[in-house]
Amino acid sequence: MEISVIAIGDELLIGQVVDTNSGSIARIIENVGWSIDSVQTVHDDADAILRAIDTAFSHTDIVVTTGGLGPTKDDITKQVLCGYFGGELVLDEEVLDNVKTVFDKRGLKLNALTESQAMVPSSCRVIQNRVGTAPIMWFEKTICGRRKILVSLPGVPFECVQMFESEVFPQLLDLYPSENHIGHRCVLLTGITESDAAEALDSFERGLPSYLHLAYLPKQGVIRLRLDGAHTDDSLLQSELDRYQAEIIATLPDKVLASADITPEEALLAKLRKRGLTLATAESCSGGNIAHRITSIAGCSDVYRGGVVSYANEVKINILGVSETTIATNGVVSEPVVEQMAAGACRAVGADCAVATSGIAGPGGATPGKPVGTVCIAAAVGGRVIAKTYHFPGTRDRVIDRASTAAITLLASML
Amino acid sequence: MEISVIAIGDELLIGQVVDTNSGSIARIIENVGWSIDSVQTVHDDADAILRAIDTAFSHTDIVVTTGGLGPTKDDITKQVLCGYFGGELVLDEEVLDNVKTVFDKRGLKLNALTESQAMVPSSCRVIQNRVGTAPIMWFEKTICGRRKILVSLPGVPFECVQMFESEVFPQLLDLYPSENHIGHRCVLLTGITESDAAEALDSFERGLPSYLHLAYLPKQGVIRLRLDGAHTDDSLLQSELDRYQAEIIATLPDKVLASADITPEEALLAKLRKRGLTLATAESCSGGNIAHRITSIAGCSDVYRGGVVSYANEVKINILGVSETTIATNGVVSEPVVEQMAAGACRAVGADCAVATSGIAGPGGATPGKPVGTVCIAAAVGGRVIAKTYHFPGTRDRVIDRASTAAITLLASML
Repeated sequence: MEISVIAIGDELLIGQVVDTNSGSIARIIENVGWSIDSVQTVHDDADAILRAIDTAFSHTDIVVTTGGLGPTKDDITKQVLCGYFGGELVLDEEVLDNVKTVFDKRGLKLNALTESQAMVPSSCRVIQNRVGTAPIMWFEKTICGRRKILVSLPGVPFECVQMFESEVFPQLLDLYPSENHIGHRCVLLTGITESDAAEALDSFERGLPSYLHLAYLPKQGVIRLRLDGAHTDDSLLQSELDRYQAEIIATLPDKVLASADITPEEALLAKLRKRGLTLATAESCSGGNIAHRITSIAGCSDVYRGGVVSYANEVKINILGVSETTIATNGVVSEPVVEQMAAGACRAVGADCAVATSGIAGPGGATPGKPVGTVCIAAAVGGRVIAKTYHFPGTRDRVIDRASTAAITLLASML
Repeated sequence: MEISVIAIGDELLIGQVVDTNSGSIARIIENVGWSIDSVQTVHDDADAILRAIDTAFSHTDIVVTTGGLGPTKDDITKQVLCGYFGGELVLDEEVLDNVKTVFDKRGLKLNALTESQAMVPSSCRVIQNRVGTAPIMWFEKTICGRRKILVSLPGVPFECVQMFESEVFPQLLDLYPSENHIGHRCVLLTGITESDAAEALDSFERGLPSYLHLAYLPKQGVIRLRLDGAHTDDSLLQSELDRYQAEIIATLPDKVLASADITPEEALLAKLRKRGLTLATAESCSGGNIAHRITSIAGCSDVYRGGVVSYANEVKINILGVSETTIATNGVVSEPVVEQMAAGACRAVGADCAVATSGIAGPGGATPGKPVGTVCIAAAVGGRVIAKTYHFPGTRDRVIDRASTAAITLLASML
């Protein structure tokens, strides 16, 4: 089954907000072999919404819209859907009760605009929103003899995703039970370009059976290889996926960071946990991003003990014990400094391993011989410390992200 | 002028990668009053790409495609565009030279797949990609007497955005010079719900002239009010935007965090810089995210000195000087602990002000009376420390983000 998604909202098209809902929906439905056919992102504009619905229904039977359901004047999705599917806006007492309950829980008072969220088209079936105020609306219509379903979800990501996963998708699955089994395998590579990986895997790819497909997803120096398959025989599919995944690993053994669909930081945590080691971070140019990426992983606290964001030199000297002489001699962006930072982080935080960064994220701060993008990174495991100097292209955000990933993969490669 | 964007790539529809290119393009073109009509996100599939091109050309004259230009087998955009606009794939020597130069600079060796990037449709005009290997292709076609332009850009965000801004958009502007002047004003509110803000601004909104438009963009407890205008008379437009922005501020004076289109952390940095104060962070549950958000701002180092990510209790005690007795008596998620963390961060880092967080980001870690989402936050300015306890709904990521924003706005409100 394929779903079309229509993401509604001016904020999505003026670059204020990025649509993450469609990606979340994709990850939920792929587990039973469903996929998203396409996403149309349109303004809070009646003509644009109607045109998108027509386009979506022209090649899929299920359409999910997200957004445009807020209480303010710019949100018109409900009115447009009422016009398209017929009926009129009527008060839904259960929705009103829900809005009141949500507001009570948050300690807020109800006003007239919020109450208007309880008005719903008479042509829809309402699914109560248990985590917010905008009701979920399920519409059906027969077009050229085919049943067409449109479900309207709120745009707030956690409301949209939670209600899609817990209520909307189970109801869709009841209507369209799945036939094919599907499966995925993933291999994370580091230290290799996309082209070189593709060349090394060329004959492997040509030998894949038609029900398997390999995709390359390069990001920040890490390439995610994703092997997707769909087959009516689940045990055949799973064993073939295992076999072909093992072949990828055997082809590029020294480039493999992980053999699961995880992030580099998840791969690092898994390696540390397996060996019973703890982790510290010492960040200058990456500014807390490594710590943030690690602590975004639930359950990280058995491995990660903490870190220091040493933006000012005094913090490097006083908390991490970096020598003033080393800074004066080599400059603060230097391998000797990050080596001392990594060792100092282990000491200060009481951890077995550490990563450290010092660099010029830009746009300012370049010095002769050290252009923007120069980043020194060290990784320490016990007493062993390795330091490297990198040159990352791009904007400040990009340098910070690349430096964070490089630090994580450098330590992972030492384990 | 309106542009249609077609984002091409399986990775965008399976939830592996989020499209940020269209938002970046929107922010570039809005400065001259252009906007994005719609974004269609489609698979690496010939039929889907062709259908999207037809849809886009049916209501806009300019189409920008992003992605699907990599050297691997799953990328087919170039072949599809060659089929649509005619001609055949031919070797472009200048592109080949560029690919070689880029690879030399990165210290990589060329292979046959990478060389295939130099094959381009004979029906296009090539714009050299100065920051990557995939060439930018400019196609034109007359449909029903109207000139239609399609420009194909790579999907890698920094290549796409840099080449669109520096090369593609200037060439489009030469063809379609702009008439209307446009302008924006922004007001950031905190400590108020979207509904209450909309109610307070109801008569203001009804009094707006037709060439001005107000949008509400709520996110993590902060509401971004955006006033957009377009008019042929620029000085009238600018003075009216100023006047109406001042009216918003006068309507909700104690809820205003900033009167510019900036992030809460930029607002905080600006306030600190104005008063000559320095900043430290002490993060437990937010895990470095506050430091990361602050250090993402170029030039933050005159205000931000550094911080401590104190995940383990020993780090709170040893580096931040939190009392063991306070932890034992009140629990680590408590207002007394974050007060000591904030004061300790000022001392350890040598800063005038600090924020501190300790909470339960989830999904595990809840204790009786302290459910997931409970977060204690403190802010210190000189010797004055304020602590508050919050309850944030949602997933781990969401709790971390909300806690970070709450800490930033709490300190900002004290300045």
